[in-house]
Amino acid sequence: MKSNERKIYLQRESHFSSAHKLSSKNLTLEENQKFWGKCSSLHGHNYKIIVTLYGEIDAETGMVFNINLLKPMIEKVVNTMDHKNLDEDVEFFRNNLSTAENIAVYIWDNLVNDIPNKLLYSIKLWETDRNSVIYKGSNP
Amino acid sequence: MKSNERKIYLQRESHFSSAHKLSSKNLTLEENQKFWGKCSSLHGHNYKIIVTLYGEIDAETGMVFNINLLKPMIEKVVNTMDHKNLDEDVEFFRNNLSTAENIAVYIWDNLVNDIPNKLLYSIKLWETDRNSVIYKGSNP
Amino acid sequence: MKSNERKIYLQRESHFSSAHKLSSKNLTLEENQKFWGKCSSLHGHNYKIIVTLYGEIDAETGMVFNINLLKPMIEKVVNTMDHKNLDEDVEFFRNNLSTAENIAVYIWDNLVNDIPNKLLYSIKLWETDRNSVIYKGSNP
Amino acid sequence: MKSNERKIYLQRESHFSSAHKLSSKNLTLEENQKFWGKCSSLHGHNYKIIVTLYGEIDAETGMVFNINLLKPMIEKVVNTMDHKNLDEDVEFFRNNLSTAENIAVYIWDNLVNDIPNKLLYSIKLWETDRNSVIYKGSNP
Amino acid sequence: MKSNERKIYLQRESHFSSAHKLSSKNLTLEENQKFWGKCSSLHGHNYKIIVTLYGEIDAETGMVFNINLLKPMIEKVVNTMDHKNLDEDVEFFRNNLSTAENIAVYIWDNLVNDIPNKLLYSIKLWETDRNSVIYKGSNP
Amino acid sequence: MKSNERKIYLQRESHFSSAHKLSSKNLTLEENQKFWGKCSSLHGHNYKIIVTLYGEIDAETGMVFNINLLKPMIEKVVNTMDHKNLDEDVEFFRNNLSTAENIAVYIWDNLVNDIPNKLLYSIKLWETDRNSVIYKGSNP
Repeated sequence: MKSNERKIYLQRESHFSSAHKLSSKNLTLEENQKFWGKCSSLHGHNYKIIVTLYGEIDAETGMVFNINLLKPMIEKVVNTMDHKNLDEDVEFFRNNLSTAENIAVYIWDNLVNDIPNKLLYSIKLWETDRNSVIYKGSNP
Repeated sequence: MKSNERKIYLQRESHFSSAHKLSSKNLTLEENQKFWGKCSSLHGHNYKIIVTLYGEIDAETGMVFNINLLKPMIEKVVNTMDHKNLDEDVEFFRNNLSTAENIAVYIWDNLVNDIPNKLLYSIKLWETDRNSVIYKGSNP
Repeated sequence: MKSNERKIYLQRESHFSSAHKLSSKNLTLEENQKFWGKCSSLHGHNYKIIVTLYGEIDAETGMVFNINLLKPMIEKVVNTMDHKNLDEDVEFFRNNLSTAENIAVYIWDNLVNDIPNKLLYSIKLWETDRNSVIYKGSNP
Repeated sequence: MKSNERKIYLQRESHFSSAHKLSSKNLTLEENQKFWGKCSSLHGHNYKIIVTLYGEIDAETGMVFNINLLKPMIEKVVNTMDHKNLDEDVEFFRNNLSTAENIAVYIWDNLVNDIPNKLLYSIKLWETDRNSVIYKGSNP
Repeated sequence: MKSNERKIYLQRESHFSSAHKLSSKNLTLEENQKFWGKCSSLHGHNYKIIVTLYGEIDAETGMVFNINLLKPMIEKVVNTMDHKNLDEDVEFFRNNLSTAENIAVYIWDNLVNDIPNKLLYSIKLWETDRNSVIYKGSNP
Repeated sequence: MKSNERKIYLQRESHFSSAHKLSSKNLTLEENQKFWGKCSSLHGHNYKIIVTLYGEIDAETGMVFNINLLKPMIEKVVNTMDHKNLDEDVEFFRNNLSTAENIAVYIWDNLVNDIPNKLLYSIKLWETDRNSVIYKGSNP
């Protein structure tokens, strides 16, 4: 691959639908309701994510990374959560609360080694149309 | 109220986030997975609804119905499902599968008597951005 | 024009940004605040409209109506309201409250004679993303 | 299947990206440019469609029609147009202009026999976010 | 609070509907019309904002900041503008033109002291779907 | 112009609809299909762009840059691509593949000299709702 020394961000959107609740094992039912509000009951969301890569445009292909290769990598992570109960069906959330923040971290940690050349730049995750988080790895 | 003989549709959007699964009590786990696909596992959605009223524009107020009165009526129904597990927390879905179709029927049946003058016209419900249903009552 | 006897709906979206308030001349300030809520103060919206035509597909052009002819007709009406104070700058709203319902009626009444062959079918108007009305003329 | 006598609309969204142009074989280049404007040159769109079915809710499954069966039917039609030049790659558009109106008719005509029980109700097609058509078959 | 040394962006969307106009006191009516175009007349918008916080994920709660605490902070600022005439009802805009830029600055200046630990990162404000600004404070 | 030392991002959205295909002149038809997938056939998109400027808010006008001046600059570039076949009608894409990455570079290179004071900050381009790129110039 020949670089043309132009760097660019590449973004791909994906979706999954999961059940979850937010409640700390160290708190009573009442304390959980007080701290987490209505999120302490089992409910669910249509999650939307945008995975961003950052790197040089290859002079021959005119691309940073082939999106047809990126799609199955994203699918692999998304499928571990899609149409699941996050807190019971996904190992990671048995020890980590399924907050939007932690779900973004989970996606990053599962993608970062699959995507070559340290291209992974950020994970944006919407829990609803109005709430979202962006995670750029542990050394942003 | 004086009518100006002009009829109009009035629409109000609302949202709720719930967990659910689709599985028939009469089927085995395998049969359910085969028929319902991944929807047979516990998961969840951000549901979006549009409630439509249809009636004459009042000549004095220029409105079909005061939206400030409509909002709490819709909230009342939405709150029975928001941040809940539909199949366990809502009486109606213990005997009716929580399909998009049945959720729309449930919302209609709970709103139709609150809204005066037979103004209720339809319930549109999105389960995801790509799947929706519209219900206009039992005699459309 | 030759018809192929297939009828279809054609829709075109447009936008305008206007100031307005809702208050009845027959009511006191307090009564207006009580009835109209926060809408009784001067505020504004980005209004969105969808104009729908309904008619036969012309067998030669494959169209109901040339959208390049429809656009300036819609612009003409929209321009009477865009970047205006509806209640003071538009004659119609000096005697009619600028509710979403009445704005849709105003658009219909100003378009219906410009568009030939009784093609105009409906006006949909959004005041915000969550509130809309649909008007189909005085004999829907 | 047992009906509960409640009828409902079921909607599914899909997408395709195609090239096309609008120009009549009977017109000169200049006449085409005058009539069709910039659409007379080869260009393209991300088309969005919503397929609507209408029928009774099955009392046992709580559904009108299994969306997992509907999806591949829609895909089959969409795939004949996706990432294609409509005017050259799709037989139907060699003799019919690829207007939004005619594309909706083409989708209807290709779906109506696959979907059982006369459930197909309408095809909505967006050419851009601001232009759309709705077709309900030849006897709406 | 224990940090897990992972930093993240947290975003919350909100909305308000206001009237305003853009005209300089030092210019004549004609000069204002020439410089500001149609924005020099009283009109209005549905404004959309996204408030972004940036900080470490708390190891115990899995959150940067409790969104149930953030919501009323945002509401407090939004309520000073919602269903108001910005230029007359909000002190700040009597001496500062109500451009999108200045509205974003106003929101920042009113939020930055309420939100603890210098977590406030940026204010994004849309005046229409097509125009927006992003402000990151006076030392971005 | 007097600065108030507050810097801000200003964003403006625009759209164009074009045909294109992705295929390398050095590859056979089969190799192109294998590498580019269905994108190797002529198809098209509704492209969406957001142009971002970054600079100081002018203390007198309350703006970074007059959006009424920015609009025609963006139009000029967009019009070279709108309702065109990118690969044949735009000189730049005869020697550069019309990937989303290269289209963003093309827009940047054509805007950067028109917009004064090095205000141009980034070009974001969506090929579909789910795929986008962001380019910040050759020295980001």
